[in-house]
Amino acid sequence: MFSSADVSEQPDVSSTPSTKSERTRALVRDIALRSFRERGYDATTIRLVATEAGMSVGATHYHFPSKHHLVQELYLDVQAAHRAAAEPLLEASDDLIERLGIVYRTGLDGLAPYHPFAPEFLSAAVSPRSPINPLSTESAPALAIVRGLFADAITGARTRLPVELEERLPDALTLAHLLLALFWVYDRSPGQVRSRRLVDRGLGLLKGALPLVRTPLLRKPVRDLLDLVAEVRA
Amino acid sequence: MFSSADVSEQPDVSSTPSTKSERTRALVRDIALRSFRERGYDATTIRLVATEAGMSVGATHYHFPSKHHLVQELYLDVQAAHRAAAEPLLEASDDLIERLGIVYRTGLDGLAPYHPFAPEFLSAAVSPRSPINPLSTESAPALAIVRGLFADAITGARTRLPVELEERLPDALTLAHLLLALFWVYDRSPGQVRSRRLVDRGLGLLKGALPLVRTPLLRKPVRDLLDLVAEVRA
Repeated sequence: MFSSADVSEQPDVSSTPSTKSERTRALVRDIALRSFRERGYDATTIRLVATEAGMSVGATHYHFPSKHHLVQELYLDVQAAHRAAAEPLLEASDDLIERLGIVYRTGLDGLAPYHPFAPEFLSAAVSPRSPINPLSTESAPALAIVRGLFADAITGARTRLPVELEERLPDALTLAHLLLALFWVYDRSPGQVRSRRLVDRGLGLLKGALPLVRTPLLRKPVRDLLDLVAEVRA
Repeated sequence: MFSSADVSEQPDVSSTPSTKSERTRALVRDIALRSFRERGYDATTIRLVATEAGMSVGATHYHFPSKHHLVQELYLDVQAAHRAAAEPLLEASDDLIERLGIVYRTGLDGLAPYHPFAPEFLSAAVSPRSPINPLSTESAPALAIVRGLFADAITGARTRLPVELEERLPDALTLAHLLLALFWVYDRSPGQVRSRRLVDRGLGLLKGALPLVRTPLLRKPVRDLLDLVAEVRA
């Protein structure tokens, strides 16, 4: 399993900066991301980032008009690292449950360094009015990476699901990922082992339930459950 | 169905104040609860409440050392009104699904007046470190009222559930209630009609699934699901 240290060693996915302006932007961004990881959300300020970059606050504002824009960079960075950690592992398995487990577990790995500051991130992001809410329009590109990972995990598995289920499962799994992240913020067990056990249990439940989804008995409850998820995601 | 106006007419459940100190406490409390309902969480301050009560800040501190203590009064007030709204309706039905619907729907009715301010309450309460977190020790008495309502809804229904399910269902339903409240904060539909539809769909799903819980096929998945909920609630 990839440790969080390994994840942070993944190459930066943003294009290599070429112009001076792009290099400045990358510098500010990298300093901000390290500050979020090391100081948390509350203690990271544009002023502090500017000072560490040896720039004026005005100059950083040109690239990032507010702290919220830096958080969106953080989301993209975390999810790009998530994808980079998950993809090589996904190549090694065609078992659906294993593949979903890879996506959830590498997701938790990538979040690990942020756990000490997770409550303050949550307070800042949880309001539906917050520009750093994970469900906001601004955060859509980062969330799309997670959804894409779940879609890939399903498409690349040898198990064939009923079309209706295959199409709607990625949204349900992404919602479960967000609820898992919420649980993880509350998880005070060493190494957040309870969050990992929750993944194991959830996947065990899915494994037991999947062979049943084609039975006439369960077709309607399963469709109802997917309707419920669609209602939540709408 | 009880409107939120009806709910607010329910008699106060705290004992009738007799001493001067008790009357002062009740006055401060009532002014604070009205302020939370009318101004929201952020704009309600101890100073403002003290002014409206014609008291010094120090005098209110004697009864309520912080704003958090007033929020706990609010939680108790909302849940006591929830119980008062649900109980007479529960007497009129012995159908399990209907009874659960009564608890969820009267819960949403009671929350309705707070919807404009719900995002700011959520931001303040969501951190696991927040003293007004609904899962905190301080908030346990209010949450116990909700759990008790679900337990009563089950015990008073004519449907007999397997013991294992009956014992563990109230926790699962209380967790669902908290997640419903989270969804409701995000619900921008008129009158939060989508939250009500979510209740309808969820109960429809439960209604379809309940006859199946005794089948050998589903006994294990159901137990796994309850284990998962127990893991989350622990």
